[in-house]
Amino acid sequence: MSDRNAVVIDLKFARPSVVAALKGAFAGRTVIDMAEPENAGRDLSGVSYAVVWKPDPALFERAADLKVIFSGGAGVDQILSAYELPDLPVVRFVDRSLTDRMSEWVVLQCLTHLRWALPYGRQQRVRIWDEFSPQPEARDVTVGVMGLGVLGQDAVAKLKVMGFNVVGWSRRKKEIAGIETFDAAGLDAFLARTDILVGLLPLTEETRGIFDARLFARLRQGGALGKPVFINAGRGGSQVETDIIAAIEGGVLGAASLDVFEKEPLDAASPLWALENVIITPHAAAASDVAALFRHVEAQMERLESGKPLEHVVDRAAGY
Amino acid sequence: MSDRNAVVIDLKFARPSVVAALKGAFAGRTVIDMAEPENAGRDLSGVSYAVVWKPDPALFERAADLKVIFSGGAGVDQILSAYELPDLPVVRFVDRSLTDRMSEWVVLQCLTHLRWALPYGRQQRVRIWDEFSPQPEARDVTVGVMGLGVLGQDAVAKLKVMGFNVVGWSRRKKEIAGIETFDAAGLDAFLARTDILVGLLPLTEETRGIFDARLFARLRQGGALGKPVFINAGRGGSQVETDIIAAIEGGVLGAASLDVFEKEPLDAASPLWALENVIITPHAAAASDVAALFRHVEAQMERLESGKPLEHVVDRAAGY
Repeated sequence: MSDRNAVVIDLKFARPSVVAALKGAFAGRTVIDMAEPENAGRDLSGVSYAVVWKPDPALFERAADLKVIFSGGAGVDQILSAYELPDLPVVRFVDRSLTDRMSEWVVLQCLTHLRWALPYGRQQRVRIWDEFSPQPEARDVTVGVMGLGVLGQDAVAKLKVMGFNVVGWSRRKKEIAGIETFDAAGLDAFLARTDILVGLLPLTEETRGIFDARLFARLRQGGALGKPVFINAGRGGSQVETDIIAAIEGGVLGAASLDVFEKEPLDAASPLWALENVIITPHAAAASDVAALFRHVEAQMERLESGKPLEHVVDRAAGY
Repeated sequence: MSDRNAVVIDLKFARPSVVAALKGAFAGRTVIDMAEPENAGRDLSGVSYAVVWKPDPALFERAADLKVIFSGGAGVDQILSAYELPDLPVVRFVDRSLTDRMSEWVVLQCLTHLRWALPYGRQQRVRIWDEFSPQPEARDVTVGVMGLGVLGQDAVAKLKVMGFNVVGWSRRKKEIAGIETFDAAGLDAFLARTDILVGLLPLTEETRGIFDARLFARLRQGGALGKPVFINAGRGGSQVETDIIAAIEGGVLGAASLDVFEKEPLDAASPLWALENVIITPHAAAASDVAALFRHVEAQMERLESGKPLEHVVDRAAGY
């Protein structure tokens, strides 16, 4: 075939969400959904666009005429690190819905730990009425956000509205109005200020395993919450789970909220499930809304076809 | 005595918080702390100011020369309904800290129910990795806030920033930029729109028992969360707890968060403690910061003494 208008879909998402979203998407284009058995051996030559999340590695050989690869998620390590990719623009998924959902989860976790929701829940289960005192308020607590892309900046803005003191870190310094930011060289100073650490980092060679015992030990001890809190909604590969467990058990960390894990699903045997003051969610902080993904992809296709530059193109050298 | 500069304190708060806050407060004034045994029989004639939370009913007879009564909390039903009060201005406690804390708690509860934190917590306890789908986002959910005073308006603003669709209700219609508001006559229309009902009402004859089976039955069924959620951080006297229990058990309500109760502390035998998807906190949503209370009282004393009108004076007829 040589349908330059065609789009191949290889999204290892829950099937019903993909099937539902495909109805009404990509009007006027040929859609080749690789999850349909009849497409298993189909000729993909001539296809211009691929929308992928953990695709079949052979896809990129078979679709040799691709012009653009669209990532099905905000993170692109699932494509960049696992494949010999052709030298094509990779477009990340940036979407209001994805961003809003991520900030909902991040703000929820910060407020949960600020307001002692887990200890209050344990009291409730044994019918104890006892107010924890003193109760710090958000302005007594500094949230340090690592990763200041679209998601990080939205979380920063909403955490500030909720009253938290917020600082930010990114590898290359970013200027964000109203908050103090740090770059690679300022990591120690950033961590020393941070009571609640929020990880929203992409997974790259530089961030793999960055959340380890050495980093946790540099967080501020004795802030308004007593001990620092670690929250990760970026990538599981950035954290060392044996170090998180040791830090919680040893009192270096007071609490944690984890949505991502070194290996997903998290093994039922992991001690993380049962640690006091640790919240586990199943990579659900900001599930990609597939309909929104397809709207985003269509908008970028139209940009390209009308001669405008693509947006949200990944820096392949930096890995994000 | 006839020390018109004196202030009598009768605050049934945790003692250490009062003792700590009194250090350095009311400089240049005589402070008579009724919790100190040596003040039990003290002559209170001539004292101008009282700062009270659930005070000894005899206080107002003994302090016959009071000019102003300062409430120790945002709610004034603890004074107005329980005493034959002298005809004096009653000043409510309005404070940035109190307001911020209340909004923290309200936003926490709304996000908790939006993001299924309780069901996810139950899954975690049995080590189940399973994403709930579809996950509504805040903009799919309408929060209806009843009570649009200082606390209600702050909660409205922060819920909107988090993405929720917000509507507001107050007995007398209030215009608030950016949200639709309803008054007494519009209660049905307000409830029919509401997925998460947030109670921030004062306790008056009109609000006593307002959150009952009849009201819950008028909330929107089948919204993005499936069933409506009831959140109360106003006054326990506004809710009918047997009706809340029946509504949760009968599926009229899907979840609830309660910080206030008909009788506090909540009796250990109450079924509320153990209901699925019900969060109980021990009247801790917005604990009065006593130091902030005293700063507020001092500011109002200074206004009065320099000829300015008092702020935040209660409408005794309306009861709030």
